[in-house]
Amino acid sequence: MTSAWPPRPSPVSTSASSSEVPVPETVASLSPDLARARFREGLRVPTSGWSAGWTQANLIAVPREQAYDVLLFAQRNPKSCPVLDVTEPGEVGCGIFDGDLRTDIPGYRVYEDGELVAEVSDVRDLWRKDLVAFLIGCSFTFEAALLEAGVPVRHVEVGSNVPMYRTNRPCRSAGSIGGPLVVSMRPMPADQVATAVRVTSRYPAVHGAPVHIGDPEALGITDLASPDFGEAVPIGDGEIPVFWACGVTPQAAVMQSRPPFAIGHAPGMMAITDARDSDYLVP
Amino acid sequence: MTSAWPPRPSPVSTSASSSEVPVPETVASLSPDLARARFREGLRVPTSGWSAGWTQANLIAVPREQAYDVLLFAQRNPKSCPVLDVTEPGEVGCGIFDGDLRTDIPGYRVYEDGELVAEVSDVRDLWRKDLVAFLIGCSFTFEAALLEAGVPVRHVEVGSNVPMYRTNRPCRSAGSIGGPLVVSMRPMPADQVATAVRVTSRYPAVHGAPVHIGDPEALGITDLASPDFGEAVPIGDGEIPVFWACGVTPQAAVMQSRPPFAIGHAPGMMAITDARDSDYLVP
Repeated sequence: MTSAWPPRPSPVSTSASSSEVPVPETVASLSPDLARARFREGLRVPTSGWSAGWTQANLIAVPREQAYDVLLFAQRNPKSCPVLDVTEPGEVGCGIFDGDLRTDIPGYRVYEDGELVAEVSDVRDLWRKDLVAFLIGCSFTFEAALLEAGVPVRHVEVGSNVPMYRTNRPCRSAGSIGGPLVVSMRPMPADQVATAVRVTSRYPAVHGAPVHIGDPEALGITDLASPDFGEAVPIGDGEIPVFWACGVTPQAAVMQSRPPFAIGHAPGMMAITDARDSDYLVP
Repeated sequence: MTSAWPPRPSPVSTSASSSEVPVPETVASLSPDLARARFREGLRVPTSGWSAGWTQANLIAVPREQAYDVLLFAQRNPKSCPVLDVTEPGEVGCGIFDGDLRTDIPGYRVYEDGELVAEVSDVRDLWRKDLVAFLIGCSFTFEAALLEAGVPVRHVEVGSNVPMYRTNRPCRSAGSIGGPLVVSMRPMPADQVATAVRVTSRYPAVHGAPVHIGDPEALGITDLASPDFGEAVPIGDGEIPVFWACGVTPQAAVMQSRPPFAIGHAPGMMAITDARDSDYLVP
């Protein structure tokens, strides 16, 4: 099967081009460096489909005082919080992210005592010297593999953000940090669920296999049309909702556990890293 | 192929038996609970081959003050330090270990300022209220799978401890904790190396695929007959040494980084957990 990737061409102009007519290109073909430059310039969009082959990551940054609890929370909940990298206190880059975490993500959410106090596209004036940033694996990473295998990815088809839901399943807490599992949802025909499980199982570092297949109410989700984060997507007749653990889980934990300060990415607007999807593929 | 496991019957008497002639049994068939009881009674042996199907783990316990650095060190060096579970400060058990970490491991090493100050079989009088214990995956976990696949495991064949070596490869450090990669070595015929890679790749939580195949000097190992931990094993004509990252790496980091206090297991004498090997198998 030939690649259906990228299914959403979204041509953007090449600002670096000196020709009179900008060279059209798809966001899927942008290198991480060029993608981050767009976001640094202020572009504010969900990143699903961007920089195909390069791993995307969730951000959660907390003061060093809370860093052990957050890291242990991640270790205890590896399905939702697979840690890809951690910065030194105050630093704005790390091994897999050769950019500036304060500017190179399309959107940020800022929390004080667990309350969302700002949603901005630049946090340079909010970054603190004691902040430790965690990059957490993102399921966008395996979407190219799903599409290659012929599994539909609805939010990519319709060009929207992925729908995400708080569940009634508590994570294992760690010290001061605890909260509910958050999931992303992709609906698909019943005969493709097994393929989706098989394909995503090979990416344990970016949430791996689904945590739940079918009845949303078993997870305490009463209305698929009203996601807690992202956007609802259409579900066809006979399609089954499939749920994966989601890297927004640490933000839900921040909202419940109320550390004094935290910065996360805007859900669906990820850090595009310099790690390759294939780095996280297991046999 | 039928199971070659256990290749080392090592009959031990059933101390709980009330019959006059003790019932012989193999250590491979002991439940984790019964195995831990033997060690609690003082039996001091390497655990390779014990409790087949149950996951074995390395121990490193440090004061809460150093716990973030150790956890981050583990996160940054997942091949050598895959974290399976972490205790709450002062506790002596955790989710995957329903025993007493102070008594239920065959041997312990105690470090003060990075110096080995004691090697004992019980650390009840040394355990501190602020100690955090990390259970780190162990390559003994995939040895049953190697044997099932027809790959020889020499230290099991000859009934010795696995040979382990410090390498010249530095780990990524984390705060106050850094040190060299430690590896375990299993020699095998050249035509079985690919099988060994394929089989162990499926166990990323217990060191996964080898980190090096062949020339020991490339790792700075000058004499395979003089391991830094464990015991040397015979290497046959035409056999190739295959090296896996080893969970003794945190102890080498303790020796180099000199935290005020630490307790590790005696190399090769592991914590036998209540987790199943299959829990860590990826597709």
